[in-house]
Amino acid sequence: MLVDGRPYRSIWYDARDRSVKIIDQTLLPHDFHIRAITALDDMVEAIVAMRVRGAPLIGVAAAYGLYLALRDNAGDIDGPIAALQATRPTAVNLAWAMSGARQVLEPVSADLRADTALRFANRLADADVATCEAIGVHGSRLLEKLWQGRADQSRPLQILTHCNAGWLATVDWGTALAVIYKAQARGIPLHVWVDETRPRNQGAFLTTWELQQQGIDCTLIADNTGGHLMQHDMVDCCLVGSDRTTASGDVCNKIGTYLKALAAADNNVPFYVALPLSTIDFAIHDGLREIPIEQRDAVEVTRIAGLDQQGVRREVQLANPDTRAGNYAFDVTPARLVTALITEAGSCRATAPAIAELRDAARSGVGSSGRSL
Amino acid sequence: MLVDGRPYRSIWYDARDRSVKIIDQTLLPHDFHIRAITALDDMVEAIVAMRVRGAPLIGVAAAYGLYLALRDNAGDIDGPIAALQATRPTAVNLAWAMSGARQVLEPVSADLRADTALRFANRLADADVATCEAIGVHGSRLLEKLWQGRADQSRPLQILTHCNAGWLATVDWGTALAVIYKAQARGIPLHVWVDETRPRNQGAFLTTWELQQQGIDCTLIADNTGGHLMQHDMVDCCLVGSDRTTASGDVCNKIGTYLKALAAADNNVPFYVALPLSTIDFAIHDGLREIPIEQRDAVEVTRIAGLDQQGVRREVQLANPDTRAGNYAFDVTPARLVTALITEAGSCRATAPAIAELRDAARSGVGSSGRSL
Repeated sequence: MLVDGRPYRSIWYDARDRSVKIIDQTLLPHDFHIRAITALDDMVEAIVAMRVRGAPLIGVAAAYGLYLALRDNAGDIDGPIAALQATRPTAVNLAWAMSGARQVLEPVSADLRADTALRFANRLADADVATCEAIGVHGSRLLEKLWQGRADQSRPLQILTHCNAGWLATVDWGTALAVIYKAQARGIPLHVWVDETRPRNQGAFLTTWELQQQGIDCTLIADNTGGHLMQHDMVDCCLVGSDRTTASGDVCNKIGTYLKALAAADNNVPFYVALPLSTIDFAIHDGLREIPIEQRDAVEVTRIAGLDQQGVRREVQLANPDTRAGNYAFDVTPARLVTALITEAGSCRATAPAIAELRDAARSGVGSSGRSL
Repeated sequence: MLVDGRPYRSIWYDARDRSVKIIDQTLLPHDFHIRAITALDDMVEAIVAMRVRGAPLIGVAAAYGLYLALRDNAGDIDGPIAALQATRPTAVNLAWAMSGARQVLEPVSADLRADTALRFANRLADADVATCEAIGVHGSRLLEKLWQGRADQSRPLQILTHCNAGWLATVDWGTALAVIYKAQARGIPLHVWVDETRPRNQGAFLTTWELQQQGIDCTLIADNTGGHLMQHDMVDCCLVGSDRTTASGDVCNKIGTYLKALAAADNNVPFYVALPLSTIDFAIHDGLREIPIEQRDAVEVTRIAGLDQQGVRREVQLANPDTRAGNYAFDVTPARLVTALITEAGSCRATAPAIAELRDAARSGVGSSGRSL
């Protein structure tokens, strides 16, 4: 998508200096900085520090990390895969990408492994772009229906989103925001309420920046606000991403998603979750019991970085230094609160049979035309 | 309550320099600064800038503000009352305090008005302290029941609170936190989850500070977290204050309260609201339609102040400077989501008949012994 009018991906292999380039997302929106990654350890650090984040992007970043590792030492596949898998415990794409890479790499002789890993990573990146674009197309049909069904077209369609499920969370397009970008392309007038998404402020830092760069009208709000907006008919739908989805449609996404889903259900507002099929973990059904929830450092809650009056990036301490803080990164939204899942193979209800049917359709190639609700 | 082991109120008249003293709550927890207020305009500014905040405290602060105004010009009652009423539109205590003051002052000759206003304000402050202490006593019985009813007493009773309904929001004791302080005095082991309460961070800045000063174990969390905790049986009850309560039990409180009430209902966690009867607006029934919701400056969302590495208080810009932000200060929790109201006259269900019965009991003096569920 566009940055200052120029198209970018969030990660790419740069043949000129044989590095993997990422946009350092910890510096946005204040600083648009491209970082060159040339070794496994740097990629592990980039994922742990959330310089790259978002379930789909993490999978691709790990695939590139594996390439960098094999370039230095083609003999060891297990070590780098273990290191990359350990970076973030919740998203399933990481495990999915690593398992795919292992299948491709194990039969290959050591001298060809690095090249094979690079091709695998590049293919994964391209596939993610195609997947996300398809998610956008399918989802935009749902938004079109909402828009066409609205009696009052004097104000734009109002969408509430949480965290960043935009192109920065994927390789390009995004998941939830791909739907918005494709709806924009269809000419639907849009306004997006952006949850700031404490404690890491991905909404305030990343989503508003993305939407502004794409020229989409948006308003930043504290995470506490969405319920009030829904009570007052100021939200036409909620639209979020997913870090892991169970075979039954439970959605594990950024902490706070569940609260918005409750408010949506209480106010009869559709709650849509946009996700690549790769984030569905068909091995599990009960999201609350079976998905490990990452706990991160308390300083993410007690400190925050922004620009001071001189425009210098500065971290400030919010709470007393001896304040204990809890930092759970994700929560689980039960399937009963989800109106529809939007995938690259089409949309479906969040039920085990509907999800299985969509997967089977995608496997048999029906997915390209897309099923919809 | 205690500050560094020494008892304080949040507001008091200081006869030595004839000023009204407040604790400047915009500087906590980093700086404990007492501010002398000597004129109406300064009190209006202190309420608008939220140097004093919390529905009960605002009422008392306005009463002192009226005294300061009449000390300068005893001839005009209406002007200062209008100025004070306009500071914050949502809380009903302000209107209640001003209407009480007017009744007392109008029959009094101009030369006696300032003294009468001061006595009225002092009485209001003392009454607020007694009210809050009674709320604490009644509420602590509910916590005791929860505690006694719990099979596993190996871990403390876990309470989630939102915003600051502590002694800083009243003259002393607080409302929701008074319940906690009285439960502490009863020897119930406690742990409090404190919502940071964006955008003004009253939880991070004020509630954690209050609890730490009183030696109560607490953990600061992002507002997004409570749902996850309740899903995982880590919250025994929610306990919040109220800025305005309808005759039917709808509760208008800090933005985000409604989301926690939804999560509590979804997980069968009791949701308690502690409030003085003075915050009940018997003229209204439908909180969603009838309570005006204050909208505050967008910079409260886009900027934040904390201590830099040198210990200097510094404001930083979080979002891009051209980011639009919405800042709704309160939301309404429908009565159906409230387990009980805790007042100085006892506890009751959040229904019109139960609330009316409690009010009548309080008027006839039965309240002193306290009704309970």
